[in-house]
Amino acid sequence: MKYSYLDNKELGSAVDEFIESLRESDFYLGEEEVQVSDALDRIVSQAVFAGISAPHYYACAMDGIAVTAKDTFGATDTTPVMLKRHRDFETVDTGDPLPEDKDAVIMVEDVIVLDKDTVKIHAAASPWQHVRQIGEDICQDEMILPSNTKIEPAAIGAMLAGGIGRVKVCKKPVIGLIPTGDEIVSPRPNPKAGEIIEFNTSIFSAMAQKWGVEAKIYPIVVDNLEMIKESLVMACEECDLVVLNAGSSAGREDYASKAIEETGRVYTHGIAIRPGKPTILGIVGGKAVIGVPGYPVSGIIVMEKVVKKVLENMIKSPLSQGEKLEANLSRRVMSSLKYQEFVRMKLGKVKDRFIATPLNRGAGVVTSFVKADGLLEIPLNKEGIEVGEKVEITLLRSKEDIENTLLINGSHDPLIDQAHDLLKRKDYTKHISSSHVGSMGGIMAVKRGETHLAGIHLLDEATGEYNKAYVNRYLKNSGACIIKGVKRSQGLMVARGNPMGINDIKDLADKKARYVNRQKGSGTRVLLDYLLGISRVDEEKIYGYDREELTHLSVAVQIASGSADAGLGIYSAAKVYGLDFVPVCWERYDFITARELLDDEKVAGFAEILKSDELKAALDKLGGYETSGIGEVEYL
Amino acid sequence: MKYSYLDNKELGSAVDEFIESLRESDFYLGEEEVQVSDALDRIVSQAVFAGISAPHYYACAMDGIAVTAKDTFGATDTTPVMLKRHRDFETVDTGDPLPEDKDAVIMVEDVIVLDKDTVKIHAAASPWQHVRQIGEDICQDEMILPSNTKIEPAAIGAMLAGGIGRVKVCKKPVIGLIPTGDEIVSPRPNPKAGEIIEFNTSIFSAMAQKWGVEAKIYPIVVDNLEMIKESLVMACEECDLVVLNAGSSAGREDYASKAIEETGRVYTHGIAIRPGKPTILGIVGGKAVIGVPGYPVSGIIVMEKVVKKVLENMIKSPLSQGEKLEANLSRRVMSSLKYQEFVRMKLGKVKDRFIATPLNRGAGVVTSFVKADGLLEIPLNKEGIEVGEKVEITLLRSKEDIENTLLINGSHDPLIDQAHDLLKRKDYTKHISSSHVGSMGGIMAVKRGETHLAGIHLLDEATGEYNKAYVNRYLKNSGACIIKGVKRSQGLMVARGNPMGINDIKDLADKKARYVNRQKGSGTRVLLDYLLGISRVDEEKIYGYDREELTHLSVAVQIASGSADAGLGIYSAAKVYGLDFVPVCWERYDFITARELLDDEKVAGFAEILKSDELKAALDKLGGYETSGIGEVEYL
Repeated sequence: MKYSYLDNKELGSAVDEFIESLRESDFYLGEEEVQVSDALDRIVSQAVFAGISAPHYYACAMDGIAVTAKDTFGATDTTPVMLKRHRDFETVDTGDPLPEDKDAVIMVEDVIVLDKDTVKIHAAASPWQHVRQIGEDICQDEMILPSNTKIEPAAIGAMLAGGIGRVKVCKKPVIGLIPTGDEIVSPRPNPKAGEIIEFNTSIFSAMAQKWGVEAKIYPIVVDNLEMIKESLVMACEECDLVVLNAGSSAGREDYASKAIEETGRVYTHGIAIRPGKPTILGIVGGKAVIGVPGYPVSGIIVMEKVVKKVLENMIKSPLSQGEKLEANLSRRVMSSLKYQEFVRMKLGKVKDRFIATPLNRGAGVVTSFVKADGLLEIPLNKEGIEVGEKVEITLLRSKEDIENTLLINGSHDPLIDQAHDLLKRKDYTKHISSSHVGSMGGIMAVKRGETHLAGIHLLDEATGEYNKAYVNRYLKNSGACIIKGVKRSQGLMVARGNPMGINDIKDLADKKARYVNRQKGSGTRVLLDYLLGISRVDEEKIYGYDREELTHLSVAVQIASGSADAGLGIYSAAKVYGLDFVPVCWERYDFITARELLDDEKVAGFAEILKSDELKAALDKLGGYETSGIGEVEYL
Repeated sequence: MKYSYLDNKELGSAVDEFIESLRESDFYLGEEEVQVSDALDRIVSQAVFAGISAPHYYACAMDGIAVTAKDTFGATDTTPVMLKRHRDFETVDTGDPLPEDKDAVIMVEDVIVLDKDTVKIHAAASPWQHVRQIGEDICQDEMILPSNTKIEPAAIGAMLAGGIGRVKVCKKPVIGLIPTGDEIVSPRPNPKAGEIIEFNTSIFSAMAQKWGVEAKIYPIVVDNLEMIKESLVMACEECDLVVLNAGSSAGREDYASKAIEETGRVYTHGIAIRPGKPTILGIVGGKAVIGVPGYPVSGIIVMEKVVKKVLENMIKSPLSQGEKLEANLSRRVMSSLKYQEFVRMKLGKVKDRFIATPLNRGAGVVTSFVKADGLLEIPLNKEGIEVGEKVEITLLRSKEDIENTLLINGSHDPLIDQAHDLLKRKDYTKHISSSHVGSMGGIMAVKRGETHLAGIHLLDEATGEYNKAYVNRYLKNSGACIIKGVKRSQGLMVARGNPMGINDIKDLADKKARYVNRQKGSGTRVLLDYLLGISRVDEEKIYGYDREELTHLSVAVQIASGSADAGLGIYSAAKVYGLDFVPVCWERYDFITARELLDDEKVAGFAEILKSDELKAALDKLGGYETSGIGEVEYL
């Protein structure tokens, strides 16, 4: 039952060899003729030459009179020259054709009218002055676009100006997307246990749309070899490239490679990339078939790195190129020598440095791609990249967006989401990117200058005081200060009605409650340990002490779903799921920042949001917050 | 008749004030609900929260057996634990829901099967190992997207995974485009003299399409105030923003501002930008109306800098942001203190420097935007930028495209276009960007390291030899070398049948032919002066000596159109327009480059193209070329 791949082929050569094999079945799509006005973003299949010159006639470039330059020679202030209408000149407007026998235009400002048919000029006209030459813009038969060029808006204008109404372009590829799997179901609001919502093909078809490629989504096929083969063969007849989603691995119910093998040929099974190793490259009926793994993140990577490359060769044009950015790595990234890895990164600019932080690498987590700002590529045979190293990131958002992003590390509180939403309502150009690394993680990020703000709630067991003590301990003399946040009610979240009658920390052990904990370094974990200490309860006695979640919401969700009896968290999280809440204490949740960042417009803007009535209203709605002094700066 | 604008307002404040006035008539478009799967690139009008958690059930993350961790405690190699099916364990596959009473999964590899209902394990399972927690990806009621966020492919997946099927998004704006003018006609292959093909609105609607905005093009309206008003009012009823194209200036037949004034209100007439000054900002029936100048380049700038900004405020999201690039300026750019200027630039990377060269600034030349790689912005109150200064360019193409662009400066020959087309057929990722700056200009560009190649044909009057002498004179010891080009036939292009019987240079003066010349510094100009010299003809005697064109084709076009009787140029150009050709001499047209660039893949690739049979065939078709040795390198 161990995965066993046919290959672990290097990405570049795997794809290049595959494209070579495809060439043999001549997979270039061929051309079609379209209206120039409908040709935006299409690829010209042949060079385009102008049919006419633009301008196509001698056009007056000024309002004034058209003359023959010869007739004006010798005109000066002292020796003016008289000109007679119809004999020597004609009145013209900008854009008018230059009269046959004339070769220059004199601006109306330089013409002295003596009578309706006679004018006087004080300066000679040089031949062709103020005349737009034929072909000034485009000459007839001049090349406007070479082959395989993407048609941009200005090119549409140039072709029309050059008398070209229709143009030959490469056909648009159609890719077929076949979702497979017994457990997957089409999107719905209330799936049953065991039903996994199929959203990969929706992501893939959106990616195709971004590339200007048409996508056709086929019905879900269960894990049945014959049915998969049937759908595959049909799609290969109807489309130019087919993506078989999931079942591309080598598990018990992975039929993709067998299906391709039995209807065509598999060229590669297994590419040395992570995520995305279980990828299949095959050809069925002369069409490219790509087996793409089921995990959404792996799927997106394989679409981007494999499918896109094949399509580009079909239409002979690059589909889209991500902007690159150099950034400092804020955390060490490990990588396997055996794989070329693609790591989703969060990016932000703190002072004048771009900071890149790796995101959760679980390939099953699609939200990690929603949060990702860019991709870091770690080549084969590299063990990883060290903290602080400069890395090149391929951006998923614009550099401008990243410069406009406020970074918040540390402990998470729902108020951050509320503030984010309010911020974007006030100024749509700004963004917030928050990483849940716990309060201590946040303090360290501020210390290293890797975040604008850190949300912390850290109890000093000695003084019983919150946050200040930690800032003084870890950020001494570093000019850090506090932007006041909220007081929030921490307590034990338990099932509605509190069936086990849990009333304090001791009950957790005594009543053998199944506990769900927060990760080390989180303020809530520190609080629990403090409470266990003063109530003299050994953590060994807490069943599930090692079961860790990253946010208040995810703790609450476990209790709501009945897999845990209790967990420490804030009131608002309990309220979301209608859980009972046993208050334990009020704690301060504040933000810390470096003093010199206080006038950073993003930080200042965030402080404004904190002070706003809208946020206070939102927090009242969430419940369990006390907001006096929120947004005020406290220097230490 | 002098232009007289109401204002010369600074761009930023003009637009901001305009948007403020629009806010009063509440121009925000409002929202509509769409299917998530159709929502790509739409802007969410409200924050989106997950309807369900993902996963929404405890999913086994491995093939194996589901157990209760408690039951496995104490299992070691020496003290294995026995488990009974249905009492202690159930067999599960990846993706299966975890059975109600279980809380961990043991991998099949770690299970020793004793009989069909009994297994043995040698290691304890920790609670929740190999189980995908509920909400591992998304927790119910967690915020997936804040307000005013653009929906990217991954977000579509996240929403569907979160049980969201429909989403509220900002309505798509519809912009109306009204072309006006007596002389303009819809695109056609053979316009008459005085007819100007209307292609601006096609460019504008393509730009709108790129922004994800819908465009509606209205019929052409002649220069008649009442008719323009009528069309304007209708468009304002049907669209969210209206662009009135041309007539925005203050000339005799410019009705745009009057039309807006009489149906609504003009807020600004005249913005301090170049090109694009004659721009009008007005409101009619609560809708934004923007009067855009007629010159295509001005129009594109105003669409990009004004119309786009207004639209962004309508939908509360940035529409598109150009990548920025730092480059060295290869030529001084002058600018007026009174204007914020936008200069189209050509870009390329020579060795490790990005080089930016300003393009022809004629606002009427749409092809200059086809050739442009980026825009240089020169702020108000700046006289210009000096050669070699570092400038920030907003890109119109990707940085990758620019790195893949071969720069050819100097004299132009149609063979460059042919080679460009062949290159793009062979490798669609490569591009050629050629600037017609004449042979001398090319040599200087090589000297300054601002181009990969220069095309030159320079006759050394002393030796009668081509090119080498100049390279030795101007590029001495600079390691420049020659990539052999062609011998081509230079001669006098004259009307078909040579009506004036022009047989040599002397005839030009003797027969008073209307001559059309090439620009100073061009090899053909040098050749003419040489020929005038040896035939003892004074340039004063050549009528039209000062009439300059930049390419062989544009010289030929003037003769073909009857506005000139003769011009010096190459056979292939004469042939294009069926002109007669009086051969004067064969000349060498070669390429020069810096030696260290010979292994630059772009330069090497170009040399390969030169050697190719396809190019030779193309040159034979053009005629007048002799290709022996083409593509060979000649060291000096």
